Amino acid sequence: MAKKSVLTPQSEDFPQWYQDVMAKAELAENGPARGTMVIRPYGWALWEGMQAEVDRRIKDAGAQNAYFPLFIPESYLHKEAEHVEGFSPELAVVTHGGGKKLDEPLVVRPTSETVINAYFSKWLQSYRDLPLLINQWANVVRWELRPRLFLRTTEFLWQEGHTCHASEDDARDYALRILHDVYENFMVEVIGVPVVTGLKTANERFAGADQTWTCEAMMGDGKALQMGTSHLLGQNFAKVFDTQFLTETGEREYAWQTSWGVSTRMVGGLIMTHGDDAGLRVPPKLAPIQVVVLVVRDEDGAGDAAAALAKQLKAGGIRTELDNRDAPFGRRAVEWELKGVPVRLEIGPRDLAEGTATMVRRDKGEKESTPLDGLPTRIPQLLDEIQKALHQQAQQRQEDRTVDAATVDEAIDGARTGFARIKWDNGGELEKRLNQESVSVRCLRRQDGSVPLATDEPDLVAVVARAY
Amino acid sequence: MAKKSVLTPQSEDFPQWYQDVMAKAELAENGPARGTMVIRPYGWALWEGMQAEVDRRIKDAGAQNAYFPLFIPESYLHKEAEHVEGFSPELAVVTHGGGKKLDEPLVVRPTSETVINAYFSKWLQSYRDLPLLINQWANVVRWELRPRLFLRTTEFLWQEGHTCHASEDDARDYALRILHDVYENFMVEVIGVPVVTGLKTANERFAGADQTWTCEAMMGDGKALQMGTSHLLGQNFAKVFDTQFLTETGEREYAWQTSWGVSTRMVGGLIMTHGDDAGLRVPPKLAPIQVVVLVVRDEDGAGDAAAALAKQLKAGGIRTELDNRDAPFGRRAVEWELKGVPVRLEIGPRDLAEGTATMVRRDKGEKESTPLDGLPTRIPQLLDEIQKALHQQAQQRQEDRTVDAATVDEAIDGARTGFARIKWDNGGELEKRLNQESVSVRCLRRQDGSVPLATDEPDLVAVVARAY
Repeated sequence: MAKKSVLTPQSEDFPQWYQDVMAKAELAENGPARGTMVIRPYGWALWEGMQAEVDRRIKDAGAQNAYFPLFIPESYLHKEAEHVEGFSPELAVVTHGGGKKLDEPLVVRPTSETVINAYFSKWLQSYRDLPLLINQWANVVRWELRPRLFLRTTEFLWQEGHTCHASEDDARDYALRILHDVYENFMVEVIGVPVVTGLKTANERFAGADQTWTCEAMMGDGKALQMGTSHLLGQNFAKVFDTQFLTETGEREYAWQTSWGVSTRMVGGLIMTHGDDAGLRVPPKLAPIQVVVLVVRDEDGAGDAAAALAKQLKAGGIRTELDNRDAPFGRRAVEWELKGVPVRLEIGPRDLAEGTATMVRRDKGEKESTPLDGLPTRIPQLLDEIQKALHQQAQQRQEDRTVDAATVDEAIDGARTGFARIKWDNGGELEKRLNQESVSVRCLRRQDGSVPLATDEPDLVAVVARAY
Repeated sequence: MAKKSVLTPQSEDFPQWYQDVMAKAELAENGPARGTMVIRPYGWALWEGMQAEVDRRIKDAGAQNAYFPLFIPESYLHKEAEHVEGFSPELAVVTHGGGKKLDEPLVVRPTSETVINAYFSKWLQSYRDLPLLINQWANVVRWELRPRLFLRTTEFLWQEGHTCHASEDDARDYALRILHDVYENFMVEVIGVPVVTGLKTANERFAGADQTWTCEAMMGDGKALQMGTSHLLGQNFAKVFDTQFLTETGEREYAWQTSWGVSTRMVGGLIMTHGDDAGLRVPPKLAPIQVVVLVVRDEDGAGDAAAALAKQLKAGGIRTELDNRDAPFGRRAVEWELKGVPVRLEIGPRDLAEGTATMVRRDKGEKESTPLDGLPTRIPQLLDEIQKALHQQAQQRQEDRTVDAATVDEAIDGARTGFARIKWDNGGELEKRLNQESVSVRCLRRQDGSVPLATDEPDLVAVVARAY
């Protein structure tokens, strides 16, 4: 099918391509208040799919959902010194409520460590209550001066987990369990996004945490996107909120805590990982629509045959959409391409006469004529193949565009097109010199690729890149 | 099992009973900012179950989920005169963001008609785009001077549907479809709460709507709770936001709109409908835990037998919890009673020796000894019975406590213990006289029980009550 490109090519202007995709695939638009976002139904369906898969994994890790208030008294934020220093410049503040000026301003939560600890300190009594594992799905607000849809918005949606443990080891183990079994597993298995896991430097750590671990993904332009983080909070918040428990030996001890979150930012990450010049490419496991059955022209029974096929696929558990709309075929085909539906089945009178459909794989753009009656068994296999192929492609790109650098200059050079690995000089000048060139240390890793527990472990590798 | 009551009896002080249940069943507590609420895991699980069931019905009614910003420019609220008049006293206002005073204050959404219309007016082009059916799950804020957990909180969670249609009839039909097929169906079938559906008087209408329909339920104390509403907005918002479409004949016309919502308030309604002096009674279809297998004493293999039974029930699709905690049996039994788990299966060494378990129905408090090996087939039937019994009891109470009143005084008298039905005098003094006695018109109905389309239809019946 001959068609004009409706998007700015990635190679020409990647940020413009991203904005074009947002509009043309009807994913999201800017809200009326600066930095806010309207998530349109197709964009929401992607997030809803992510939520379901992440939520299941969080529950498998033993955490329970709960909900804490949007408004936090300003004084709560001030209790943890590093925390307030980190978040103060980003706060939205409610000063008036119910027609009156408030005695104490309320902060719209930028994250909920403070308010949740105020309750943990009441709920937690003894070691028998541990671990205390809580998660919430919520909106948070961090004032954003350079907003970008999904990637950096003043209001965003996320889950934030907050836990209490009896020892530092228990807390650290749980933070890493979330990093690997929930986040990394979801990103790789469901959305096909390969991630580099590692430890953040002190400079990049969450405000108030002892350690932060991260999942970093390489986008289509070689830049890094932080996809999710898991923090060891130590006893920092427990001490200021007096979150204590009675140990088995009858002593009072401050709880050891973690917090961790992933957000609507992952939708942006998905798009920039798999998208191409024709639009999104959504991995089948996440795709709200896995197969679209497209009637080319509703003549000679093509419409009925397409409807019957769509029904059959749906009955087989395939998320299928029938498109027999009264609009030009080409325009409709482009729309499904933009939305990244993994498989398009096109049926017209000519196909039908031959008992076939034209099958188009969105990931490769390949078309083939295929017998109609084989589709119900063929489609599930094909969706599996596409799922693997998308992950594989992203993995390949990440490998191809990651270089080993011997010097800072080589690392900066490597970060022009992707990631660079360079020996970490804990306490040295590396990070500062990179930052001067708008390159950052995305994370620290051990030689074997596992995640370090501290930045001063010997022989660590820094993975550096430009980042969103 | 002999035990002391842990709750204030309903007959003694119903509001205190409700507060006791909130605390003892670990459902929710007050947040730090006035009127806000912390929803604890068990309370959240009830809401999560409601969300899933309501969401499915909304999607079946053709609406798609999306998300609009929390912050609305103050000027948006002012566009619809009745709307701003209704909501102004309840607004929370953000005046500072990112460390600076804002040029225009932002209102924390009390509802989203205004911001959503700002986008509908961009998205809606022609009659081909209609109906446009959007829903969002979100938090909203309405400043609350007399907060009560779940029932009336400054921040609450809800879904709000917003739709555009080509004609007033289409819009009205859809508003009523939501009322009956989504809300009433969910309330009756899933949470076993019988509801009286009807039309709100002009006085009780949503600020900015032409008509409001409602689902009203009778609580355990005979008072009414508004469980959900569906509004015909007419063209009121469309006109001020210029939400127009091109008709089939090429003219521009304002869209006809609806909006509709149910909230976390339903959790309160569930509790006050089915709860008794021992705590919650959760209908099996909603219950996060349908069956708890309780080890009386872990001796002579009772713990293993209980674990095996729990596993077997889970495999059969029953939401089952095993309780073999190291705590006194009586205290654990009371806890499950408080939480309203429909069926308790108690297994101790004595039961096990006889190949039985003690089965306790939460709705009736009845205990019986029952053979272990029959349970996997018996439990699903029992859960069905309990579901029906809870609905039936609530239905019976509603009938018993609803009187036909010939005079206003009789209606006021009837409202002391329940609902009263009285002939509606559109434009007359009835509503005013009732309100003076803290009784309100919950809704108007036709003689045959169907919902009226306007308050001036002949021969309407007003259902009146005291209300939450």
